[in-house]
Amino acid sequence: MPTLKKGRAALKGVRAGLVVSGFSASGISAGIKKGRKKDLALILSTRPCTVAGLFTKNSVKAAPVLLSMERIKGARARGVLINSGNANACTGKRGLRDAEDCAAFVEKALGLERGGILVCSTGVIGVPLPVERIKKAVPRLVKGLSPQGFEEASEAIMTTDAFPKRVLLKAETEGGRITVAGIAKGAGMICPDMATMLAFLLTDVRISARLLKSALKRAVEGSFNRIVVDNDTSTNDTVLAFANGSGGVRISSRGPAFDTLLNLFEEVSKRLALMMVSDGEGATKVVEINVKGAATPSQAERAARAIATSFLVKTAFFGGDPNWGRIIAALGRAGVKMREDLTDISFDNVMVLKRGLPTGREGAAARVLKKKSLILTVDLNSGGAGFRLWTSDLGFDYVRLNSAYRT
Amino acid sequence: MPTLKKGRAALKGVRAGLVVSGFSASGISAGIKKGRKKDLALILSTRPCTVAGLFTKNSVKAAPVLLSMERIKGARARGVLINSGNANACTGKRGLRDAEDCAAFVEKALGLERGGILVCSTGVIGVPLPVERIKKAVPRLVKGLSPQGFEEASEAIMTTDAFPKRVLLKAETEGGRITVAGIAKGAGMICPDMATMLAFLLTDVRISARLLKSALKRAVEGSFNRIVVDNDTSTNDTVLAFANGSGGVRISSRGPAFDTLLNLFEEVSKRLALMMVSDGEGATKVVEINVKGAATPSQAERAARAIATSFLVKTAFFGGDPNWGRIIAALGRAGVKMREDLTDISFDNVMVLKRGLPTGREGAAARVLKKKSLILTVDLNSGGAGFRLWTSDLGFDYVRLNSAYRT
Repeated sequence: MPTLKKGRAALKGVRAGLVVSGFSASGISAGIKKGRKKDLALILSTRPCTVAGLFTKNSVKAAPVLLSMERIKGARARGVLINSGNANACTGKRGLRDAEDCAAFVEKALGLERGGILVCSTGVIGVPLPVERIKKAVPRLVKGLSPQGFEEASEAIMTTDAFPKRVLLKAETEGGRITVAGIAKGAGMICPDMATMLAFLLTDVRISARLLKSALKRAVEGSFNRIVVDNDTSTNDTVLAFANGSGGVRISSRGPAFDTLLNLFEEVSKRLALMMVSDGEGATKVVEINVKGAATPSQAERAARAIATSFLVKTAFFGGDPNWGRIIAALGRAGVKMREDLTDISFDNVMVLKRGLPTGREGAAARVLKKKSLILTVDLNSGGAGFRLWTSDLGFDYVRLNSAYRT
Repeated sequence: MPTLKKGRAALKGVRAGLVVSGFSASGISAGIKKGRKKDLALILSTRPCTVAGLFTKNSVKAAPVLLSMERIKGARARGVLINSGNANACTGKRGLRDAEDCAAFVEKALGLERGGILVCSTGVIGVPLPVERIKKAVPRLVKGLSPQGFEEASEAIMTTDAFPKRVLLKAETEGGRITVAGIAKGAGMICPDMATMLAFLLTDVRISARLLKSALKRAVEGSFNRIVVDNDTSTNDTVLAFANGSGGVRISSRGPAFDTLLNLFEEVSKRLALMMVSDGEGATKVVEINVKGAATPSQAERAARAIATSFLVKTAFFGGDPNWGRIIAALGRAGVKMREDLTDISFDNVMVLKRGLPTGREGAAARVLKKKSLILTVDLNSGGAGFRLWTSDLGFDYVRLNSAYRT
C-alpha cells in the first residue's frame, strides 16, 4: 500500500523539523511510568487558539475526557497537558478533581486563566493519578517548552507504541502558506489495558470554531474512524485540533482555502492512522479492505467492517492464507444486500473468487499475502457504493501482549 | 460452572446406550477426509417423522442448506445424510445438483420417495463434493444402520472437534415416557475454514410440525444461540429436530407434555452447546457471562455479547487477568443504558468493581480465573433485565489453528 510508505517517508522527512508558527511543546519524565521514560507532555500556543475536539463514544469516559469536553464548549484554549502511564479512568470524583488540579498547575505556572489548558491521559485504568509527581514536574515541563519540542512531546505520549508518530505538511493558497502538524499515539496491536488513541492537529490558520470542527470531523471520519485493530473502544480516545492564526491565512467561509486545510487535515490524519495500524510487534501486515459495488455507502461500510473485525479472516491474514471462504462468510453475515454468485474477491490484482466461484489462483494470492501491505478488494456487483478501511492481522503476539497480566 | 460438568457426566453415562425407539444411525469412512477417518453419517427413522429445522442466517448458504430448507417446507422426512470433510459451499449450481444426487442415492437404496432425506455438509468450502465416493459408500452406510449406530454417526460428523457430542435424556409424563437424544458437531475454538455447527435432536413423541418447531426454536435460543466463540457465522449451520411418534406420548397442544418435551429439548441443546464451547485445543476455559440489572432484555443481551466478543476481554481470560477495565470499556461501547458509577463486576463470588470503583480484590479474582469454568457477573443496577451466555477464551492455539494454511 503506497500510502503507508509515503506516510513513513514523510515522517522521517520532518523528524527534525516539526515546527508550526506560534506553537511550542515539551516532553519529560515525571515518574508516572517506571524507568524514567517520558510520560508528561505539553503543547502550547503563544496566543489563544480556536479549538475543536472529538471524543470517545464509549459511555464510560475517563475524567480527562469529561473535563476537556466541558472546557472545549467555549472553543478557545491555549494548549493541552497530556500524560501517559495512567488513564485516570474509573477513578470517580477524585479523578475529575485530579484532572482539574493538573490543568491548574500548568495554568498557574504560565499565568493563564482557569480553563485555558485541556487534559488527556492514557495508560492503566482504575488507579488514581499521581498528582503530586505531576505537580512537581510541571515547572520543568514548562521550562522545556520549545518550538522544536514536538519530538519529545510525541515520545512522552506513547504507551505501547513502538515508534512516535509525527507528520507535518504544508500547502500554498492564494492567501499564503498553510501548515498542519500532527502527533499521535496508539498501537496497531492494542496492548495491555486500553486501546487508547490520542491525536493532536496544529495549524497556523485563523478559522472559526465551526469550520475547524467541520474539517476535523471530516478528517477523522476518513482516517482514525477507518482503522480496525480489534473491536474495542477506549474510555480515553481524544482528537483535538488547535488553530492559532499565527500564519497569514484566514478562513472565514468554505472555499479554496478551507478545502486546502481540509486536505491537509485529511492527509495528516490518514498518515497518523496508518502508522497506528502498522505499529506494534503483533501486527505483521496492514491490509486495506476495499469494498465496491455495494447498494449503499452504509452497506459498503458494514461489509468492510464485518471483514475487518472477523477473528477468522484476521488469523488467515496472519497465516498468509488467501482464505476467501472466510471473507465471503463474513460478508454473508454482515446484513448487506449481496449475492454469492455476483461476488468477486481479489488480493491486490489476483482474483481468487469470480462471481462466487473459485478461480484456482490461490497460489498467486498466497504470494501477495506475503507482503507487508496489500489490498483486499471485494466487489459485490450490487450497486455503485464503496468504502475502504485499514486493518492489521491477528497473530501470536496479539495474544501474548494482551494476555499478559498487567504489571 | 456445574452445568458443564453435568453435561459431560451425562454424556459418559449414555455413551453406550444412545437409543431412541424407531431411530437408527450409521457412520463410516467414504474417503472424503484423508486417512480413513469417518466422514459420512446417516440418521433414519423407521417411519415418517415430523421434522423442524433452523438454518444459518448467513446470506451465503451452502447447497445442502438450500436443499434442506426447501425440503423441510413439507415438515415430513425420514432422515438426514451428513458428510464431513467438505462443506459443499460456494460450489454454484453444481453444488445443488450434487446435494440432490447424494440424497437420491440414499432414497434409492432405501426405497424412499424423492425428498425423504435431508442433507448436511461440513468441511472445506469451494471444493466440489466427491459425489462418486459418496455414491459408492452409500450401500455400506445403509447396511450399517443400527439403533446403536449413533456413536459412529456422532464421530462421522466431526471436523476439528476433539470429542464427539452426544446426549440422551428421558422424562416421565402422564401419557408415558419421552426420550430426546441429540448429537452435534462444532468446536469451541473454530478451526480452519468454517465455524460450522450441526445438531440433530431426535424424539419418540408424536407432535405437530408447528409445536415441534416452536420447541426447537426455544431450545436453540437458550443454547446454540448463546455460545460465543468468535463473531463468525458459518454458511452451513443447521439444527434439525425429528419426531417419529414411536413412543406412547402424543402432543397435540401446549400443556404439561409439551412443557416436558420443551425442557428436554432445552437441556439436551444446552449440554451440546456447552460441549462445543469447551471443545478444541485452543479453549482453556469456559466463562458464563451473566448480565443483570439491565434496562431491557435486549440491552442485557447486547451488553453480554459485547463482552463475549471483545478480543481484549477474551485474551485477558486466557491470561488469567481479572481485567475489569476491559469489561467496563466493552460495556461502555455496547450501546446500552449504563452508568459507570452504578456498575458491579464479579468473578464467581469475588467482586472486583463496586459501583464503578475497584475493590482491591484482584488477587482473589485472579485465583478464580485459574479455574476451567467460571461465572463473570455484571450488574448494571439500571433495571430488572438479564441475559446469560457462554464463551471461551482466546489463546495461542486459536491463532495457531486458524492461521494454518488450509491443507
